[in-house]
Amino acid sequence: MASEVLAELVAAMRAGGVDFSDIQKGRADLEALLAGMPADEGLAYERGELAGVPVLRINSGPSGAGAMLYLHGGAYIAGSTQGYRGLIAEIGKALGLPAVAPDYRLAPEAPFPAAVEDAVAVYQALLDEGIPASRIVIAGDSAGGGLTLATLVKLRAEGMPLPAAGFMISPWADLTCSVATMESKAAEDPSLDRAGLLGGAAAYLAGQDPAHPLASPVNADLAGLPPLLVQVGSAEILLGDSMLIAERAGHAGTHVQLEVWPDMIHVWHSFHFMLPEGRQALDAAGTFLRARLGA
Amino acid sequence: MASEVLAELVAAMRAGGVDFSDIQKGRADLEALLAGMPADEGLAYERGELAGVPVLRINSGPSGAGAMLYLHGGAYIAGSTQGYRGLIAEIGKALGLPAVAPDYRLAPEAPFPAAVEDAVAVYQALLDEGIPASRIVIAGDSAGGGLTLATLVKLRAEGMPLPAAGFMISPWADLTCSVATMESKAAEDPSLDRAGLLGGAAAYLAGQDPAHPLASPVNADLAGLPPLLVQVGSAEILLGDSMLIAERAGHAGTHVQLEVWPDMIHVWHSFHFMLPEGRQALDAAGTFLRARLGA
Repeated sequence: MASEVLAELVAAMRAGGVDFSDIQKGRADLEALLAGMPADEGLAYERGELAGVPVLRINSGPSGAGAMLYLHGGAYIAGSTQGYRGLIAEIGKALGLPAVAPDYRLAPEAPFPAAVEDAVAVYQALLDEGIPASRIVIAGDSAGGGLTLATLVKLRAEGMPLPAAGFMISPWADLTCSVATMESKAAEDPSLDRAGLLGGAAAYLAGQDPAHPLASPVNADLAGLPPLLVQVGSAEILLGDSMLIAERAGHAGTHVQLEVWPDMIHVWHSFHFMLPEGRQALDAAGTFLRARLGA
Repeated sequence: MASEVLAELVAAMRAGGVDFSDIQKGRADLEALLAGMPADEGLAYERGELAGVPVLRINSGPSGAGAMLYLHGGAYIAGSTQGYRGLIAEIGKALGLPAVAPDYRLAPEAPFPAAVEDAVAVYQALLDEGIPASRIVIAGDSAGGGLTLATLVKLRAEGMPLPAAGFMISPWADLTCSVATMESKAAEDPSLDRAGLLGGAAAYLAGQDPAHPLASPVNADLAGLPPLLVQVGSAEILLGDSMLIAERAGHAGTHVQLEVWPDMIHVWHSFHFMLPEGRQALDAAGTFLRARLGA
């Protein structure tokens, strides 16, 4: 099934993957990987600040259309909007929304719940700008996917207006890393390993409970959330996290669409410029999410 | 969340549900329920036979566009293409395909695997008519959803050309009825109960193993199947069957899209003429499935 392009990507990830078990090395590895990704040069990438949090704004959709609040990946200890700007721009374009992506505080310098607090603060700032909640989508990949779900849970708990939808790409939402696919997909996943994730989790949690519902939102009450889209590859140790989200959100009566993409690897959307399935997943997300945007 | 229309439907189902624990009564109940559903009068409903199996053909899509092979529900003991023709027509229209729906043999007169054999035989007859497999979608609801998955597994095992996609509405795919939602959704589900399903299963199995992979296809190897769409309501005791299909097909590397629709009841698409979510689910299915049709 796997295309030649995918086979090349898998080989490249195996040869030069990101090792999150060493935080400084993990940060450098991830930035080096992301530095090789193109970013649409026809767009403007503007740095600013919202609620005291540094943000990157991208004109990936018409001004006034609303906003996509994007939460990047990196195991809560790495990643940056600079590195992820190419991917963020493509997702914003697929949704038809300008992107606002915070450089939320990272661990170990700022442990849980700093990232959740920053995401909520930036969302509130978007509301304060006059953007209707019904025109906002919160989206994120990997740790940022788990953070997307945690942010939605927190917004609901605070009684804040909820966004139109949540979009999670290959989310990491169980920081105990106890899903069965941690083992059953270990040989197949070229990008992540359980030890690295546990290293990120330890830094983020700083001794706090890994099962806390805002750290591992699969454990939260997922009732009353806006529609959720989850996209995950079948070649991921995090496949089980997506299954749990779908199972628990769906059981709680939240609209959820789970898409499992054959043979795809962690956040394959990043390779949209060479991997057809990356583009196809972006298009599918655009179709689902645009239909959720209200007036 | 529930609309007034949904509340009315729930009340109506509770008052006059289908009791599958008594086969003759279940058959009559289901036909009476279905007799109240409208069928698009602008279409032609033609009876015929394919491979010795009675079929209903509906011109729900352009002649030559391909075919939707539709497998109706009814716990393997009840239901008919006459009763389901309105729903079948709407699904065919959403997919843009003419519909071919067999009146596959029912239990207890014809136990497992008669239904699977009939479905496979009709599919082969469609290929023999010259319809490319890439222009065929196999679809079904409830028992017909499980039968859809079993048929796909059987086609793959036989080395036959596989259709473009499979579409399951509220599928029943575990005849042991052992998913947790049999209990956790029992109070919420106005349409089905475990005892009734077990009655249907007993008649269909006639002493054979309920875990047989062609009777309970959640137990089959689900690798190498065409893309699968699963739509299920959150108010269904069968919710867990859909979760299992998504989990196992996705893990096996089959493309699967699982949609959980809040508060929706068993095969809510049937109420498309009064329930907006029924129409919306048909539209969403059309979007996903049309994109899978090949040349």
